[in-house]
Amino acid sequence: MLSHAQLQRVEPPNWWVGFKSSQLQLLVQHPNISNATPHISHEGVQIKNVHTADSPNYLFIDLTIANTAKAGKFNIRFKQNNGDELVHQYELKTREIPAKDFIGFNSSDAIYLITPDRFANGNPQNDIVASLQEKTVDRNDNYARHGGDIQGIINHLDYIRDMGFTAIWPCPLLTNDMPQGSYHGYAMTNFYEIDPRFGSLDTYIQLATKLTQNGMKLIMDQVANHCGVEHWWMKDLPFKDWVNFQDNYEKNKDNWSDQTNINTSHRRTTNQDLYAAQSDKKTMSGGWFVSGMPDLNQRNPFMAKYIIQNSIWWIETAKLGGIRQDTYPYSDKDFMSVWAGQIMNEYPNFSIVGEEWSINPLLIAYWQHGHNNKDGYNSNLKSPMDFAMQNLIVQGLNEEETWGTGLIKIYEGLANDFAYTSPKDLMIFPDNHDMSRIYTQLGEDTTKTQMALSYILTLPRIPQIYYGTEILMNDSAKPGDHGLIRTDFPGGWEHDPINAFSSEGLSDSQKAMQLYLKKILNYRKHSKAIHEGKTIHFAPENNTYLLFRIHDNETVVHIMNKNKGPVDLNLSRFDEMGLQGKTLTNIISGEKVVWSNTLTLTQNGSILLTTKP
Amino acid sequence: MLSHAQLQRVEPPNWWVGFKSSQLQLLVQHPNISNATPHISHEGVQIKNVHTADSPNYLFIDLTIANTAKAGKFNIRFKQNNGDELVHQYELKTREIPAKDFIGFNSSDAIYLITPDRFANGNPQNDIVASLQEKTVDRNDNYARHGGDIQGIINHLDYIRDMGFTAIWPCPLLTNDMPQGSYHGYAMTNFYEIDPRFGSLDTYIQLATKLTQNGMKLIMDQVANHCGVEHWWMKDLPFKDWVNFQDNYEKNKDNWSDQTNINTSHRRTTNQDLYAAQSDKKTMSGGWFVSGMPDLNQRNPFMAKYIIQNSIWWIETAKLGGIRQDTYPYSDKDFMSVWAGQIMNEYPNFSIVGEEWSINPLLIAYWQHGHNNKDGYNSNLKSPMDFAMQNLIVQGLNEEETWGTGLIKIYEGLANDFAYTSPKDLMIFPDNHDMSRIYTQLGEDTTKTQMALSYILTLPRIPQIYYGTEILMNDSAKPGDHGLIRTDFPGGWEHDPINAFSSEGLSDSQKAMQLYLKKILNYRKHSKAIHEGKTIHFAPENNTYLLFRIHDNETVVHIMNKNKGPVDLNLSRFDEMGLQGKTLTNIISGEKVVWSNTLTLTQNGSILLTTKP
Repeated sequence: MLSHAQLQRVEPPNWWVGFKSSQLQLLVQHPNISNATPHISHEGVQIKNVHTADSPNYLFIDLTIANTAKAGKFNIRFKQNNGDELVHQYELKTREIPAKDFIGFNSSDAIYLITPDRFANGNPQNDIVASLQEKTVDRNDNYARHGGDIQGIINHLDYIRDMGFTAIWPCPLLTNDMPQGSYHGYAMTNFYEIDPRFGSLDTYIQLATKLTQNGMKLIMDQVANHCGVEHWWMKDLPFKDWVNFQDNYEKNKDNWSDQTNINTSHRRTTNQDLYAAQSDKKTMSGGWFVSGMPDLNQRNPFMAKYIIQNSIWWIETAKLGGIRQDTYPYSDKDFMSVWAGQIMNEYPNFSIVGEEWSINPLLIAYWQHGHNNKDGYNSNLKSPMDFAMQNLIVQGLNEEETWGTGLIKIYEGLANDFAYTSPKDLMIFPDNHDMSRIYTQLGEDTTKTQMALSYILTLPRIPQIYYGTEILMNDSAKPGDHGLIRTDFPGGWEHDPINAFSSEGLSDSQKAMQLYLKKILNYRKHSKAIHEGKTIHFAPENNTYLLFRIHDNETVVHIMNKNKGPVDLNLSRFDEMGLQGKTLTNIISGEKVVWSNTLTLTQNGSILLTTKP
Repeated sequence: MLSHAQLQRVEPPNWWVGFKSSQLQLLVQHPNISNATPHISHEGVQIKNVHTADSPNYLFIDLTIANTAKAGKFNIRFKQNNGDELVHQYELKTREIPAKDFIGFNSSDAIYLITPDRFANGNPQNDIVASLQEKTVDRNDNYARHGGDIQGIINHLDYIRDMGFTAIWPCPLLTNDMPQGSYHGYAMTNFYEIDPRFGSLDTYIQLATKLTQNGMKLIMDQVANHCGVEHWWMKDLPFKDWVNFQDNYEKNKDNWSDQTNINTSHRRTTNQDLYAAQSDKKTMSGGWFVSGMPDLNQRNPFMAKYIIQNSIWWIETAKLGGIRQDTYPYSDKDFMSVWAGQIMNEYPNFSIVGEEWSINPLLIAYWQHGHNNKDGYNSNLKSPMDFAMQNLIVQGLNEEETWGTGLIKIYEGLANDFAYTSPKDLMIFPDNHDMSRIYTQLGEDTTKTQMALSYILTLPRIPQIYYGTEILMNDSAKPGDHGLIRTDFPGGWEHDPINAFSSEGLSDSQKAMQLYLKKILNYRKHSKAIHEGKTIHFAPENNTYLLFRIHDNETVVHIMNKNKGPVDLNLSRFDEMGLQGKTLTNIISGEKVVWSNTLTLTQNGSILLTTKP
């Protein structure tokens, strides 16, 4: 008999016609579904293979979808061995825009990184969702949820755009149905659902659409390495090797919070090290990031397909302008290469940025697409993060100027670009959601903060700025405290006494920094010299360091000066830049200056000049 | 008429038949020689070209020497335009050993670095040489000459050999006719002459011969970047561009010691940096190392040939087992590639080690032959020096053990080997003649010093040990003081109260260190596992770090332990090494130990075990 009982779960929930790859694997979850046989009768769609799993409640169906397949809805009929039949309606959609038009973020962009729970509460109705485990909102607790959401971002997109940002990267928005600490989003319990406390799929698509209308890009924060321990599949794992160290977990899950013995070693060099012990590689890559985050086993081919399809589903659904991939070196590296490779194969102009938290340029270089690695590895990853340069900028600004310290660290750090396949595709940032705020890192020195920001925004890189940097948000009270780093953006909540969106109630120095960033970002937005220009810099001398970016008639000059009192910069050293006699404009003050024999620097700080009128 | 006046100078002083390159360029120096025409009548030898220089007192003669040329002496007749004729007898020698038998130092060697003036005075008669400018010997002045010489090294070669060294690298032995500070040897005033205070060419060849007889190699310390300002050619420079910033020198040479404005910037990253300003490159490479060392302009093709031929002359004359090239990145880098390339072309199994004093592995990797550099540069240099690893070993031993400090620095430093074309061809060292002594660097901690030395000698590297390290020589009284670093080796002078060669008068800890090094070096001498074995290491845990070297049935285990008290090392973590149940021998103590479940480490320090009986 025909059962009208709904199938518990089919993922991906839909697909499209017209990908380069004609293959799709459906995960079907339903009690005892393993003794059912699926049937499809739809033009251009064929069942190629059906796999049972270790659990009887799963089926994996391999479909071949011809390019000529008809878009539309059709039934998948599951004939059970007792004669019953379950029916699931599936949809193949038409692709709305050509694959080549998915243009990823690049060095012409400036990215605003947002912790959505802490940016703006656009919909107070969704702050608490009864069906989810963490039920409190408490803005006095930095580790509780505060109620920020997607609607909050949508409401303030004009602010972000006017500041001069061209892309946003919100930390993960997918459901984190964890009993506590769910606000950060990195313990996903459903890879196909927007967390109801952040909004719905519709709200997310609204955000994407409004961004596109403003010529801006949406970067999705994805996690291939792990899920939350409350992920739905943890109660009934399809395979014995669906997650790493699964045996250990299943033996001990009733008393799980104590478990640390299967955690990753965090010794990430085992990914590259030709001398690394096998057991160390296994602990690093297979170990759990923390005990609340099961480590996904991407060596299981069904898991691998699941993750890749999930990424593609989100790109196509939300017309993404990029993916930020979490904890990049913790996943199986061969899988990550396939993952990135398949995405880039479908979307040739797309961008992915991977988090490798290392200040070692050798590792950063290794992870970038096209780097000639001795072990033959090609990551297919366009944009590793440049933690090395971030670290050196802070060091260089904080240190006293000596032969080997201070600005020279920054200069020599940038000199390392010779080793990268494509420096301009690296992502640079003053800080991020896991790191002390730049203002705190620089000892609450506004001048140094401006120096860091203006330099970062002039580099041949893709810059990312964390929300609140523009108003000197800091974690100085408890440096490095994650909750404090992710403080609420003032004005994001009704009745906030200060409103950074309108600048109401900001201090003078906050207003000044906001304006400073706004001016640079808005200059940068149209600056070919910064986006793709040639780079020339001069070794620091006399506590000053000059960086030039050049494209046709546009030359941008970034001057870092650490001299406290006035100093005359002898410009003859820079003759080769061909600026003699030219009039340059100060990008911040608008003042004009003629490039002649000397330039008087009245005080320490950055100066940003352009030859553009 | 035929003049019997001797020609002032012809260099190289002789040559050989049978090089791959048939080209030889003679530098002829003699008053007004530019108006003479040279003639040669000798089978297989042809004058291809004759070049005058900017000074009338030079000629450069290009010879083509056929492989069929007859070895022997012949005359070069210089017919002057007044009809006079000068005659110079030149010799083409027969090559004594095949080119392929010049086997350079490699990872099977252990190199003893010697400052010749400070090691042993074998011939007190040559301490002061009347014809040279610096005429005093004063062992109480660390910056004066002390009288050490080649005969001193010859006299103590048995000691060096018995210690287990297989090669020596004496700091430069060529004439440094400088008014002061000549003892170090890096301000050469004649590239074809052994400094008479060190001995003669004969003594040098005796040293080479005795080394060969003992199966040992002689490494010559050469300097392509600069000479001493008292070099003979500085009084009459052949070309206007023979040295860099020559104009400036010639304008100011009467008051020269004050000149610093043409010194190098020492900003060595300009060699790699794709963003480096042209003017910075010029200052770095063309600038003088110090004002007493003119910077040779290797972009002058006559200078380039001069340097290359000089190197080949010494290899062939002394049957060298390697060259150590000073201040590698200060010379013109394109020239250095040609220089090394031509040497390696003539001697395919030779070795060259280049000094790039940088702790940045990116730079080290760049300089190694075969590295895939984005700018297309190939150095032809087999062995860069590994200052990066040296630095990390010291840091790692000195630091407290925490998540990111201590042994992890050493482990992650070695992990960087993935980026090198050939890690085993890098030269590693605890210190050298320009660097604080390792015992001082490690706070005069004997245990740490042993840890550093045993680790260095177990690595896939070419190890170099500075003379006196074996008796804990130090510069702790004034760390980093060059004179103090290069203290006299006790027993090298008659009537020295202490004699390190015989161990008479050494303290117990000195004797212990001498024996310690001797045992490891003599084990290393025959250890295929260390010379060419596979390397596996395990991430430090619980203040211990294990490194394994494996070749067939030989496994060498290096254990670093920073726990003060006794600790049981759980060996199950190392199961993949397949040592269970095997009996290993402690290389220092000779004790046997069975590799079972645990290994008790009674105190901090290194343990070196081998599976060899």
